[in-house]
Amino acid sequence: MGISVTILGSNSAIPTLTRRPTSQLVSVNQDYTLVDCGEGTQVQLRKYGVKFQRIARILISHLHGDHYFGLIGLINTMHLLGREKELHIYAPSQLQEILNIQLKAASSHLRFPIIYHDLNSDNVGVIFENKNLSISTTPLKHRIECYGFIIQEQPHNLNIKKEAIDFYKLSINNILNVKAGENITLPTGEIIENSRLTTPPKKPKKYSFISDTKPTPNYYNAIQDSDLLYHEATFMKDMIKRAKETYHSTTIQAAEIALESNSKKLIIGHFSSRYDSLEPLLEEAKQVFANSELATEGCVFEV
Amino acid sequence: MGISVTILGSNSAIPTLTRRPTSQLVSVNQDYTLVDCGEGTQVQLRKYGVKFQRIARILISHLHGDHYFGLIGLINTMHLLGREKELHIYAPSQLQEILNIQLKAASSHLRFPIIYHDLNSDNVGVIFENKNLSISTTPLKHRIECYGFIIQEQPHNLNIKKEAIDFYKLSINNILNVKAGENITLPTGEIIENSRLTTPPKKPKKYSFISDTKPTPNYYNAIQDSDLLYHEATFMKDMIKRAKETYHSTTIQAAEIALESNSKKLIIGHFSSRYDSLEPLLEEAKQVFANSELATEGCVFEV
Repeated sequence: MGISVTILGSNSAIPTLTRRPTSQLVSVNQDYTLVDCGEGTQVQLRKYGVKFQRIARILISHLHGDHYFGLIGLINTMHLLGREKELHIYAPSQLQEILNIQLKAASSHLRFPIIYHDLNSDNVGVIFENKNLSISTTPLKHRIECYGFIIQEQPHNLNIKKEAIDFYKLSINNILNVKAGENITLPTGEIIENSRLTTPPKKPKKYSFISDTKPTPNYYNAIQDSDLLYHEATFMKDMIKRAKETYHSTTIQAAEIALESNSKKLIIGHFSSRYDSLEPLLEEAKQVFANSELATEGCVFEV
Repeated sequence: MGISVTILGSNSAIPTLTRRPTSQLVSVNQDYTLVDCGEGTQVQLRKYGVKFQRIARILISHLHGDHYFGLIGLINTMHLLGREKELHIYAPSQLQEILNIQLKAASSHLRFPIIYHDLNSDNVGVIFENKNLSISTTPLKHRIECYGFIIQEQPHNLNIKKEAIDFYKLSINNILNVKAGENITLPTGEIIENSRLTTPPKKPKKYSFISDTKPTPNYYNAIQDSDLLYHEATFMKDMIKRAKETYHSTTIQAAEIALESNSKKLIIGHFSSRYDSLEPLLEEAKQVFANSELATEGCVFEV
């Protein structure tokens, strides 16, 4: 149970020998969502041993290349390796045409269906849910249309007290009903209130992914109380002017947002390739929000 | 002088941790041509220390992803790093639309012009020449429209004999004229024939790149007498049926073509990812054509 986030890439626009562009694998109870897919993501998935045919859906925050140029290659490889299971893609609407024109040029007829879900700013909020998780979007403020994603576990069942099972000799059916919140009626006709039989469930975990953006109150509400917040921090604080011009955030801004949103932990990423060492970026973030970490490739964050 | 070929990737459709898809840098007298550009090529260029802003033109053999998915990312990086010099792209005509739609989605306005040269089977032969090299195409036989490329040095000047310079006390101007093939007239009026002053020039070097194809006489003539022949060899000989079905070649077929075309050296590449070790492929090729080598990433072949 819980949410696990594997960092596959964390650099901004220009991939380097040691840092790949943005991509993350988010697993909720072994249900796989890929978030962004920069060039080389398929090789990163191999490198970190991810069974990528298990990916059920891919979310693309925006159509700058460092967030999606690896998608067509990954789709191609999924096809060549025999995928038949449908793949859901949530992205700005132009993506469908971009992929189709490339599939057409190659005369590729995919063995599996791609189901496109266009993101647009009129349709924010929950875009997907199943028994494991829900995903919602929030518009960001970047040079082009861009979205953040909030991935949450579904509410857990109530925990039934072991001694109640023994005491009332509850059947399997009774137990399932009690976990779902029902009272039970004993053979004597006596009604036992659910609250006497259960303890509250664990709070569902919440992961927020805030891709390229200048800080804006638009998304503050959506990410409140995140157990884990990824926020881009392309620049250090001395570059705030450049950050503003390019619709990006600094380390300090990312950390301030983690603080204001009452998030438990912050991961910063999308580092400008001007930084050889990332430690100074982390140091800055920690001055504002102590529980900060770097989105280092191969790191797995469990919440 | 001469031609230098750096292998950047040599795998077929699926990139793996150790083998990237097709791309090669061909340098003729420091004039750079990139041939094919699979996903991850920009990182390979960095890895092997290629100054990629020097690339003057890019040739794309066909529009299967393992030969061009890295192109949009490379163009994007050239732009971000401030390129202003025009870039020439020679490729099947649909490529222009594929790149443009992605640049448009990103609101990218490149600082440098891209000049597209559509390849098509009505227009084979020489597609480019300057003082260093000439490039010609030859149609191949693949599942989609596909071209091979022949890159040749321009004819060298005649070599002037040092003793002739001394004996006739030739001026710089005389020397240039003699190297270009002219006779000289001495102050006495005597004419000295060029053949008495010079030795024949070195034969211009020829590199042939035969991308994905089933063997077909179409291109045999174009690659005659190559100093270096790259020929795809996706499969070993026992997979000849599969090679035929997928419009590819085997090791043996590549080697036979090297032999028939009177090529001096063969590089095989575009290996199926089913092969962990490539030595058995090389052994097969060598049984037919001894001077065979593997297109191993990072290898530089000088001719």
